[in-house]
Amino acid sequence: MSCFVRKETLRRLMQPRLVVSAHCDLPCGIYDPAQARIEAESVKAICEKYQGNEDPVFRTRALLIKEQRSELVKHHLWVLWTDYFKPPHFEKYPELHQLFNEATKLAGATGSKGSVDPGEAQKLLDKIAEIDKIFWETKQA
Amino acid sequence: MSCFVRKETLRRLMQPRLVVSAHCDLPCGIYDPAQARIEAESVKAICEKYQGNEDPVFRTRALLIKEQRSELVKHHLWVLWTDYFKPPHFEKYPELHQLFNEATKLAGATGSKGSVDPGEAQKLLDKIAEIDKIFWETKQA
Amino acid sequence: MSCFVRKETLRRLMQPRLVVSAHCDLPCGIYDPAQARIEAESVKAICEKYQGNEDPVFRTRALLIKEQRSELVKHHLWVLWTDYFKPPHFEKYPELHQLFNEATKLAGATGSKGSVDPGEAQKLLDKIAEIDKIFWETKQA
Amino acid sequence: MSCFVRKETLRRLMQPRLVVSAHCDLPCGIYDPAQARIEAESVKAICEKYQGNEDPVFRTRALLIKEQRSELVKHHLWVLWTDYFKPPHFEKYPELHQLFNEATKLAGATGSKGSVDPGEAQKLLDKIAEIDKIFWETKQA
Amino acid sequence: MSCFVRKETLRRLMQPRLVVSAHCDLPCGIYDPAQARIEAESVKAICEKYQGNEDPVFRTRALLIKEQRSELVKHHLWVLWTDYFKPPHFEKYPELHQLFNEATKLAGATGSKGSVDPGEAQKLLDKIAEIDKIFWETKQA
Amino acid sequence: MSCFVRKETLRRLMQPRLVVSAHCDLPCGIYDPAQARIEAESVKAICEKYQGNEDPVFRTRALLIKEQRSELVKHHLWVLWTDYFKPPHFEKYPELHQLFNEATKLAGATGSKGSVDPGEAQKLLDKIAEIDKIFWETKQA
Repeated sequence: MSCFVRKETLRRLMQPRLVVSAHCDLPCGIYDPAQARIEAESVKAICEKYQGNEDPVFRTRALLIKEQRSELVKHHLWVLWTDYFKPPHFEKYPELHQLFNEATKLAGATGSKGSVDPGEAQKLLDKIAEIDKIFWETKQA
Repeated sequence: MSCFVRKETLRRLMQPRLVVSAHCDLPCGIYDPAQARIEAESVKAICEKYQGNEDPVFRTRALLIKEQRSELVKHHLWVLWTDYFKPPHFEKYPELHQLFNEATKLAGATGSKGSVDPGEAQKLLDKIAEIDKIFWETKQA
Repeated sequence: MSCFVRKETLRRLMQPRLVVSAHCDLPCGIYDPAQARIEAESVKAICEKYQGNEDPVFRTRALLIKEQRSELVKHHLWVLWTDYFKPPHFEKYPELHQLFNEATKLAGATGSKGSVDPGEAQKLLDKIAEIDKIFWETKQA
Repeated sequence: MSCFVRKETLRRLMQPRLVVSAHCDLPCGIYDPAQARIEAESVKAICEKYQGNEDPVFRTRALLIKEQRSELVKHHLWVLWTDYFKPPHFEKYPELHQLFNEATKLAGATGSKGSVDPGEAQKLLDKIAEIDKIFWETKQA
Repeated sequence: MSCFVRKETLRRLMQPRLVVSAHCDLPCGIYDPAQARIEAESVKAICEKYQGNEDPVFRTRALLIKEQRSELVKHHLWVLWTDYFKPPHFEKYPELHQLFNEATKLAGATGSKGSVDPGEAQKLLDKIAEIDKIFWETKQA
Repeated sequence: MSCFVRKETLRRLMQPRLVVSAHCDLPCGIYDPAQARIEAESVKAICEKYQGNEDPVFRTRALLIKEQRSELVKHHLWVLWTDYFKPPHFEKYPELHQLFNEATKLAGATGSKGSVDPGEAQKLLDKIAEIDKIFWETKQA
């Protein structure tokens, strides 16, 4: 991974210095991966209830609401990725781009039968937990 | 408060019995006052930044984003009040209706100069903390 | 109900006096329960059409649109409850909190088979009619 | 206007016959210009309050909320124009297209100083009243 | 069609002159029928995939997403009709009102089985192509 | 950059093989960076009009609408990044993650005075043009 870091470091040395906190004076500086996690817990719970109920009205509503919840998971993750994390974070955690891309792809769960599988929803929760861990490390730094 | 409880009790005795958990088999059973709290923290942080920056572009964006965040606070509180809490909860916590009504009114912060006052936003956070306390008591019950 | 009123009266006597109209200088003072009623009529009509058509594409679209309409019913009712009605109204109509809570719960119609039952939608319309009656009494007062 | 009618008549005679009610079996058949009117009353009330209050926070919120209300006026009118009204209506009321176009343009009130003028908002209400009159004539037909 | 034009011309001669560009100084003057076209291509692609996959989860998601895409087609067309096109355009292209009305009706595709028929979606694309042609003629004028 | 590619290659060799087109069978496979570009052109045009008009009502509306347009730019870019682009694309174009992150950060244009600067909006358009170039290369591959 070192050459990736080196190229990035080089690019940044040739730019005017950018202090992290200077980016973030609005909206507000309040971010919390809990927002994505709560919605993803909802996705998982819906998958479980879908599996346990064969009534077509129930199932259609379940898919509908799951779709909206998944959109919210994606949105909360996208906001963290674009608005909270800054170049120095990506430099320190080079896996962060891919982590967010995989997490939002999982949240999208595009079209496969797996999309009502609680196991898939748990994978999404695991990815969010990885992001959450990094998030709080950067907050304490 | 006892007569209120009595009337409610009476009404319920004459109805077919309603088990709490039976109401809630979809969307998902996942609720968390943290959603309202995070948005309210955002409202407070925006108020503080508004006070510290006189640039009109900044201030207009601040009001805009604060308005959206306040709407989200209201929405998350309304969902808790309507979808999570059930008649037995309102019976046990008779102040709950008024608490939610005051909290959503505070979140609306309708039109007064106070609406960019971090102190008002703190009051909102305090109300949400009261709701949060009751919420977790009902979850453990 | 009288002891509820008494406690509320007491609480208010110890607070700074609050003139009703002072709360409401923005958004605009325009409220009308017709907004909730029209959406609820739509919910009922959709239930009726759902019952009369077994085509799965039609039924899925019906559930989808009914879900959105129900959300709008809830939203319009929540706005009335939080933004239009003020403490003196709740003092005069102590059943108002519960009425709104039951109406929005009915609008949610969470997950039961009853949710495509026009009879349930009619109950929702009846609740909204009760709210509407109180609303216009308070407007004339 | 007669030649317009004639051309339209001709076109329709060569098409398979289309019964009006056949178009409209979902969403629900419930339409009411009151939805547009209530939002437009809100727009007018906001204009009046804007004129009477010079506080910049108040005025920014007023513009923000007015913008949303105007969008809703447009949306409700567009839905009536596209979903409720059918070719036979446009044949009978050939001014209807232009009426809706002018009403939605007024609702947009694009960018001129006039957009906080209650007089402009009244013009919008007048246009909606014209549409409302035609709407109820077609309902009774 | 000529008498329609004549009546419209007459009405305009008796009004204060209206320069086209004067209407349009905000939002921004940027319009492009490509927005409606891309969403309509999405609608058509979803219809094709719906036809080729009988899994009920897939089909429900397909209907859900198609419904949202259709709403976006309608919205983009409505914005063009109300915000971009001005009275002189409607005078020059008297079929424009009807073209937009038919296109948005097709986008709505209300409730018939045809709504998952790629052929219907192609008709929508054809209508948008007609609008697109006129749009670019007016841009070059 | 080669070591980044190598690590990614390694990771993929140890995973079950994933054919690109298999991910994308719903929503629809229709993507087009034109959606982001049109909204970004709107952002730039609004900046230009903001600079040329000092009326506070106009300027507030300009900021309001620009904020919404910027959100749409971000949303369209996020959808491309998460839903269209797949691991083999990120392997072939290792700068893609950073390109999207910078483009969405520019679209956010968080809080600085630069946010009404047409030059900043042009930078956003340039980033989108880079993404657009890669997008069409991958479509032709």
